[in-house]
Amino acid sequence: MKYCSICGSKVSYKIPKTDNRERAICDACGEVHYKNPLIVVGCIVESEGKILLCKRSIEPRYGFWTIPAGFMELGETLAEGAARETLEEACANIEITRQFASIDIPHVGQVHIFFCGKLKGSYGVGEESLDTQLFSEDEIPWDDIAFQSTYFALKKYFEDNGKNNGVHFHEIRK
Amino acid sequence: MKYCSICGSKVSYKIPKTDNRERAICDACGEVHYKNPLIVVGCIVESEGKILLCKRSIEPRYGFWTIPAGFMELGETLAEGAARETLEEACANIEITRQFASIDIPHVGQVHIFFCGKLKGSYGVGEESLDTQLFSEDEIPWDDIAFQSTYFALKKYFEDNGKNNGVHFHEIRK
Repeated sequence: MKYCSICGSKVSYKIPKTDNRERAICDACGEVHYKNPLIVVGCIVESEGKILLCKRSIEPRYGFWTIPAGFMELGETLAEGAARETLEEACANIEITRQFASIDIPHVGQVHIFFCGKLKGSYGVGEESLDTQLFSEDEIPWDDIAFQSTYFALKKYFEDNGKNNGVHFHEIRK
Repeated sequence: MKYCSICGSKVSYKIPKTDNRERAICDACGEVHYKNPLIVVGCIVESEGKILLCKRSIEPRYGFWTIPAGFMELGETLAEGAARETLEEACANIEITRQFASIDIPHVGQVHIFFCGKLKGSYGVGEESLDTQLFSEDEIPWDDIAFQSTYFALKKYFEDNGKNNGVHFHEIRK
C-alpha cells in the first residue's frame, strides 16, 4: 500500500508507538493501516461415500481439482462461509456436520478451515469451476489436487474412515 | 475506504464481474479491494490450577479482565499468535498444549481462536495491561470480564474440569 485508503495521502512505513512492527501510517491523517491473515473456508462434501470436487476455472491452479473453498466474507460464520463457497462453486446445498481441519500457512498469511458436510440434493458447475464431480477414494485425481491444504484434508478424511477424530491440525511451511 | 491504496485515486463501490457483492474498485487502476474477517488469537494460560488474566489498559473495555489475546499477525500460525500475545500482554512464556475454542462473531467480522497453554516461569505486566494476575475459578472477576468470547471460553474451561473435550465451538450474535 502506498496511499491512505481514508484520505488519499501518501503513507510511510513506521513502527507506531505501543506497537512492535512496521505499519503503513498516513502522513496526513495519521491512520494506521493493518494487514492481517486471511481465512479460507471450505467443505469436504460427502454423498453416498463419494466426495464432491471442483475443477478450477480460475487462477491460481487453473484446471486442478479442489474441495469447494474460498475466502471467508464479512458477516458470516466459518461454517456459513464454507456452505456459501459450496453453493457458489458447485451449485450445491449442503448440511455442515462439523469442523474437520485447521491448517496454518504462515508464509502466505492464510488459515484454511475446512468442514465436513452432506450433499442435499443436486450439484452443478459454478462460475469458478470447469467441472464438478463426485469421487470415491480410488477415483480422486490425487496427482491433480490444486492445493496442499486440500490434499492433506482429503487424505485425513479417508484415513479416518468415517470415524470422528475431532479437528485435524496442520501447518504448511515453505 | 474512499481511495485506492495502490494509486491514490478514488474508489467506487460496485459488484465486479464474476462476483456477487460490492467491493471498493479503483476508478483509475481498476484494483478490487477486499475486506475480510479478522482472526483474534488468545490463550487460557494455566499455572498450578490458576488462570492468568490481564486487566486491559486500552480501549475497548479499558479496566476489564481478559485472557491474553489480540489480532493474529502475518507470518505466524494461530498458536504462535496466541503465544506472542501472551508474551506481549503478560510478559509470559508459555507452552501451547492444544486448540480450545473457535468462536464466530459475524456482526463484527471476527473469529476468535483460543488455545490452552502452560505458564513457563514468571509473568509480568505488558504495555496493554494495567495488571496481570493468576486466578482460581472462585477468584475470577466474572462480572468484570472484558469480552463475551473470553467469558464463554473461561466457563467452558472450568466445566471441562481438566478433561480434553476437544475444541469448543460457539457463535456470538448481536
